[in-house]
Amino acid sequence: MKLSTKNLLGIRDLTREDIEIILTTASQFKEVLQRPVKKVPSLRDITIVNLFFENSTRTRISFELAEKRLSADTISFTAGTSSVKKGETLLDTVNNILSMKVDMVVMRHSASGAPHFLAKHIPAAIVNAGDGINEHPTQGLLDAFSMKERLGKIEGLKVAIVGDIMHSRVAMSNIYLLKKMGAEVTVVGPPTLIPPYMEEAFGVRVEYNLKKALEWCDVANVLRIQLERQNQVLFSSLREYSLAYGINRRLLDSINKEIVIMHPGPINRGVELDSDVADSGRSIILQQVENGVAVRMAVLYLLSPQTS
Amino acid sequence: MKLSTKNLLGIRDLTREDIEIILTTASQFKEVLQRPVKKVPSLRDITIVNLFFENSTRTRISFELAEKRLSADTISFTAGTSSVKKGETLLDTVNNILSMKVDMVVMRHSASGAPHFLAKHIPAAIVNAGDGINEHPTQGLLDAFSMKERLGKIEGLKVAIVGDIMHSRVAMSNIYLLKKMGAEVTVVGPPTLIPPYMEEAFGVRVEYNLKKALEWCDVANVLRIQLERQNQVLFSSLREYSLAYGINRRLLDSINKEIVIMHPGPINRGVELDSDVADSGRSIILQQVENGVAVRMAVLYLLSPQTS
Amino acid sequence: MKLSTKNLLGIRDLTREDIEIILTTASQFKEVLQRPVKKVPSLRDITIVNLFFENSTRTRISFELAEKRLSADTISFTAGTSSVKKGETLLDTVNNILSMKVDMVVMRHSASGAPHFLAKHIPAAIVNAGDGINEHPTQGLLDAFSMKERLGKIEGLKVAIVGDIMHSRVAMSNIYLLKKMGAEVTVVGPPTLIPPYMEEAFGVRVEYNLKKALEWCDVANVLRIQLERQNQVLFSSLREYSLAYGINRRLLDSINKEIVIMHPGPINRGVELDSDVADSGRSIILQQVENGVAVRMAVLYLLSPQTS
Repeated sequence: MKLSTKNLLGIRDLTREDIEIILTTASQFKEVLQRPVKKVPSLRDITIVNLFFENSTRTRISFELAEKRLSADTISFTAGTSSVKKGETLLDTVNNILSMKVDMVVMRHSASGAPHFLAKHIPAAIVNAGDGINEHPTQGLLDAFSMKERLGKIEGLKVAIVGDIMHSRVAMSNIYLLKKMGAEVTVVGPPTLIPPYMEEAFGVRVEYNLKKALEWCDVANVLRIQLERQNQVLFSSLREYSLAYGINRRLLDSINKEIVIMHPGPINRGVELDSDVADSGRSIILQQVENGVAVRMAVLYLLSPQTS
Repeated sequence: MKLSTKNLLGIRDLTREDIEIILTTASQFKEVLQRPVKKVPSLRDITIVNLFFENSTRTRISFELAEKRLSADTISFTAGTSSVKKGETLLDTVNNILSMKVDMVVMRHSASGAPHFLAKHIPAAIVNAGDGINEHPTQGLLDAFSMKERLGKIEGLKVAIVGDIMHSRVAMSNIYLLKKMGAEVTVVGPPTLIPPYMEEAFGVRVEYNLKKALEWCDVANVLRIQLERQNQVLFSSLREYSLAYGINRRLLDSINKEIVIMHPGPINRGVELDSDVADSGRSIILQQVENGVAVRMAVLYLLSPQTS
Repeated sequence: MKLSTKNLLGIRDLTREDIEIILTTASQFKEVLQRPVKKVPSLRDITIVNLFFENSTRTRISFELAEKRLSADTISFTAGTSSVKKGETLLDTVNNILSMKVDMVVMRHSASGAPHFLAKHIPAAIVNAGDGINEHPTQGLLDAFSMKERLGKIEGLKVAIVGDIMHSRVAMSNIYLLKKMGAEVTVVGPPTLIPPYMEEAFGVRVEYNLKKALEWCDVANVLRIQLERQNQVLFSSLREYSLAYGINRRLLDSINKEIVIMHPGPINRGVELDSDVADSGRSIILQQVENGVAVRMAVLYLLSPQTS
């Protein structure tokens, strides 16, 4: 099994077969993670550098754990302690690191397209760990893995993506993946946070009424509201956002079916999601986190020089 | 040998037997640290996450070294580079990390009780690396280990704890431990820095005269004055504090006996302790640091899933 | 083969034989780095602490990679997250870390002489990773290694060092090394950035005309202009600096010979060096970075307790 691409820049570039290979490999690694000894020697003697130009807890730790459990050697750096402050270009930073004989690069960057730019200029395999408002492909893959694990399939699933669609790389990676795999997607949120071209460009339904969307869907993937964007006045207040688009138990009980709740984290409790939902049996949020390590192990393994 | 508790939240929760088990195990690990090869395979395939929500050099490095010498896999994160800034709750942060199949958590937090709160909600073993003004149990243990190493016993020892008793988690862990092990304790400092309930609540003597306390004790454990608290006007000036409660060679020479000097570091040289004492043969400060690694190895080993 | 010194504080303290031993050992490690498995067990069970009191990307990552490829255990800390903020002295910080049984210290510090001060007080081997405006010895060694690799020799080479000589620890380490090895050195830059005593004190030629220097030399080692020093008005403007001392393709084409271009990074593209030179076949900048890992492996290996 071999991917059609040497990098993971976005779900957009993957074939349906690529996605299936990754999900199958991830479920093998998930089995490994249930064992007392969670380590495999697959990437022994491979060096991976984690370049986090944007802060992150769970994504960085998830990648680091994935790398260590594959027995890779890892070097991590975050922008705060780097030459980036000295005005070095991204390409120089990465070229320098690669000259030290690094095999793979995991990169998070606030600029959309940063990993695509790098991929044109460097030979090492690149894994995009989130670029601006473009894509967060390993999140899309772990979300799909988690849906399939809970509901047995992706094809034919009805998925609502709720929240700030316009600025969400998680939404984009989910949409690309779900459409390729034959799921139906509805995006839900206030009109100011949903680009007007969504239906036309991506073949997804747009819905402004949360309850209607929930009554339709099998799964609601609830996005994080970026509190730090509040001053842009894209919605009138957190309180109003929460009243119209926050998901709580009373709302879910008013619907005549069981739906699965997902969230990429970190949750703003009481804003987009209430604790009585986040911590309930309807939620698979912690399973998503667990699956993230298995999915990242699969991606790193499949793109490593030893495999490809 | 097995502890009566699955976490190390504070000395307060330990039995006398627990403390003896930890100190005995630590002395075995101290032997390992004298060998050219300082590593043992005890925690191979155990993953430990170090969550430092408060800055620290020596405690963090000491735990990391202890973990590496036990062959554990370690993931470290400090608050500065984390999702904590995004407003995530402590429980969400830790739950997410645990979902990635982490076995043990070492945590330092500025809020007293933070690790106790976590312990109620998560299954992994928690080691408190300092919580607010409550406890710093591994410091209490390494202090006891160092006293016993130097003076041959803890029971019956006379220990003076000198300085800002009110805000010191080191003082609290020392008091709990020394009382459980049968030592006598006097706390010494200006009245503004000693809570009025100390004698009644903890069975320790209170003394405001430093020289009298030093003439009484076998060991003086000198606390760090938190320079960052100066604006609270709990004492009139550093200079006056130092005159009344600073320990220097002349003062020690005026006493008709040898006493052992301890300090948890970092020292404010010239404030609570002068260099002519800190760097003398009376001081076991660097031994405390060395013993810290052995004591932390013991705690991690005894609380690990493989042992307990 | 054994060095005449137990620390690497500066090239100034090395003998010619020391330098030859390091370069020979580095070329053996460079061979290792070309293999699929780039790791050797040489420093297994050695613990190295990296103390970076000044920010750095490439030097820190280069040392960490060198340490991991020698199978050492590493602990890294940067000033931002340390007790240094609590006002601890450098000696206390390092003594505490050494009490934890650390074998070697790699240190970068903004104060010239900081590692020399430490070396007088602590037993562990110290590698200076850059101290103030004094020396950056591993950079000097990797520059020499790269020159020898490209041009077959160091003795008799004509080397121009271009830029801010006055504030450059890279220039100092290069000058000491090249003179010891029998190369000829010219320093080039505006009079405000070249100390008046250079010829007398170090036996180098001083030249203010860049083109003349380039016509003379075999190698131009181009220093980074510290943009952060701009407010000191040591030259009138970046634009004027670049016009008089920036190196571009047109300038190199106007000279009737091939010269090799080096730079310690990070490059200010368009200031001291244009991209049409930095990325051309004349430049060995990325080779310098690659050689840095091999040279640092050699230094750590030769100074380790197992070797010395």
